[in-house]
Amino acid sequence: MLPVVVVHGGAGHIPNERAETSCTGVRAAARGGYAVLKGGGSAMDAVVEAVTLLENNPAYNAGCGSVLNVKGGVEMDAIVMDGRTLDSGAVSAVKRIANPVQLARLVMEKTSHLCLTAEGASEFARAMGIQEVPEESLITDYARMRWKKNLDPGSNPVECQMGKMGTVGAVAVDTEGNVACATSTGGMINKMEGRVGDTPCIGCGGYADNQSGAVSPTGHGEAIMKVTLSRQILFYMEQGKSAQEAADEGLAYMRERVQGLGGVVVVDPQGAWAARFSSRQMAWAAAQNELLHYGLYAGEDIMQSIQDPDLPHTHSQE
Amino acid sequence: MLPVVVVHGGAGHIPNERAETSCTGVRAAARGGYAVLKGGGSAMDAVVEAVTLLENNPAYNAGCGSVLNVKGGVEMDAIVMDGRTLDSGAVSAVKRIANPVQLARLVMEKTSHLCLTAEGASEFARAMGIQEVPEESLITDYARMRWKKNLDPGSNPVECQMGKMGTVGAVAVDTEGNVACATSTGGMINKMEGRVGDTPCIGCGGYADNQSGAVSPTGHGEAIMKVTLSRQILFYMEQGKSAQEAADEGLAYMRERVQGLGGVVVVDPQGAWAARFSSRQMAWAAAQNELLHYGLYAGEDIMQSIQDPDLPHTHSQE
Repeated sequence: MLPVVVVHGGAGHIPNERAETSCTGVRAAARGGYAVLKGGGSAMDAVVEAVTLLENNPAYNAGCGSVLNVKGGVEMDAIVMDGRTLDSGAVSAVKRIANPVQLARLVMEKTSHLCLTAEGASEFARAMGIQEVPEESLITDYARMRWKKNLDPGSNPVECQMGKMGTVGAVAVDTEGNVACATSTGGMINKMEGRVGDTPCIGCGGYADNQSGAVSPTGHGEAIMKVTLSRQILFYMEQGKSAQEAADEGLAYMRERVQGLGGVVVVDPQGAWAARFSSRQMAWAAAQNELLHYGLYAGEDIMQSIQDPDLPHTHSQE
Repeated sequence: MLPVVVVHGGAGHIPNERAETSCTGVRAAARGGYAVLKGGGSAMDAVVEAVTLLENNPAYNAGCGSVLNVKGGVEMDAIVMDGRTLDSGAVSAVKRIANPVQLARLVMEKTSHLCLTAEGASEFARAMGIQEVPEESLITDYARMRWKKNLDPGSNPVECQMGKMGTVGAVAVDTEGNVACATSTGGMINKMEGRVGDTPCIGCGGYADNQSGAVSPTGHGEAIMKVTLSRQILFYMEQGKSAQEAADEGLAYMRERVQGLGGVVVVDPQGAWAARFSSRQMAWAAAQNELLHYGLYAGEDIMQSIQDPDLPHTHSQE
């Protein structure tokens, strides 16, 4: 069963013309994370590799491709957590960084803190020798188009938000049974400057504990925060639920208590995994036992050998 | 049993010469919160009133009296949470604000977000008409002395940190059985610029749910985050533990898993409450049934009528 990596490219309503790109990207990220694990890398190495690939892919709302805040700027959040020690690192509202997930890992490894925000996070990045990138290099035409559309006072920001959430994340178990999670996002479309969502908030935007498992969520950040979704799902697993049962129960609880939609990828230390969502779609992929699983709509679980060339696939409900 | 308010002025090792001031302040804050509740105010009104009083008191590490970051500046975190709706508001790394807890409440009430950070939080404060205060007005001689002492490369930051944590917080239940929590802090002594601790992180620095209760913690922020202490304690209560049992179990869990010390105030919706700590001391006070309870050392529960004049008290172990 080990190792395994499961990634997501965000829950929500993914426009048809972007569906295939979304699926190709998560498959590539799962392959990348799996290669790290097969090469003897740790669960932490694998989730950071997978999320880095997704941040570098302009199809997702993380790193390059991030949504813009109300001022037209990019402010990103990211978190990693290591199930061996419960240690974690996060950055919030960080600007001009190509790979916030790697900066989050450095916060964990090189400081006595768990989270750095805004200018303090940038200063730490400089001290670590991470080159700042021009903000323009993180902004896609698609992000700018959506930003402009949402500036219209007649637009419905919640509805538009559901149109493409695109937070990315990964969970993994390595051959030694260690679990880890990583999540990265540009946040919510046309958010206020300085808005911090669920992603960098431990227990909300991710949690990993070798005694129970690891979770990376996506969806309506404020709803995820109100129910501390990642920690909630691991509580269900501590009480004996499977990864899939716990994921479904957590998403149902969020829907009931705070009317929030989203999705999660979950693993337990034995390698059982789940990719579940209450939103219309979630692009996800998992790699285990030399097989690649992936899907976009509820109920989809398409399989291919991990060695097969990546071919485009037409989803049944598109 | 209702209403009730319980406040803390921080866990850690409180120097003898500051012990009485610490206790006087929490008694005053509990009286203030209780007066709000007796006047028909909500649990949210009461915790914000109590924490505002503690922020305004230079004896605590919140608002005026906050510890300084490594650059000698004040960056504050605060959170509120309303158990009726699971709605919450928080600010992180906010500067030049006299009462971060009130700004956190405005984030909850006036935005669609749950947390604003750094300059974005300041801009929101200005939009809300909150006057910025000079940074100097938040800095005490004591904070500056400790900052200088900790700049010494030979100092032990963790040990010095334990010397005075002083995060403040409150939980309350109003006459309608609604619970709320609020927590406010200057963070960790000589922290890096932009360091975000447990306080603004929902589930860590506070949690409130009418179905289980409310928690406000204090102690080593990074340890509180790793175990999402507030949410953990409420999980124990959901499983049938009393407020006191759940508090003790949560603190024991934090000590075991991540070697962290701290303290909490907890209420359940019926009005049972607890003020518990694994650190050497925690200044706390509770008001219920026209009685004021307070203590500083483990096992202390001193009582007086809420109408009695506030007289200094010599603690047995000082």
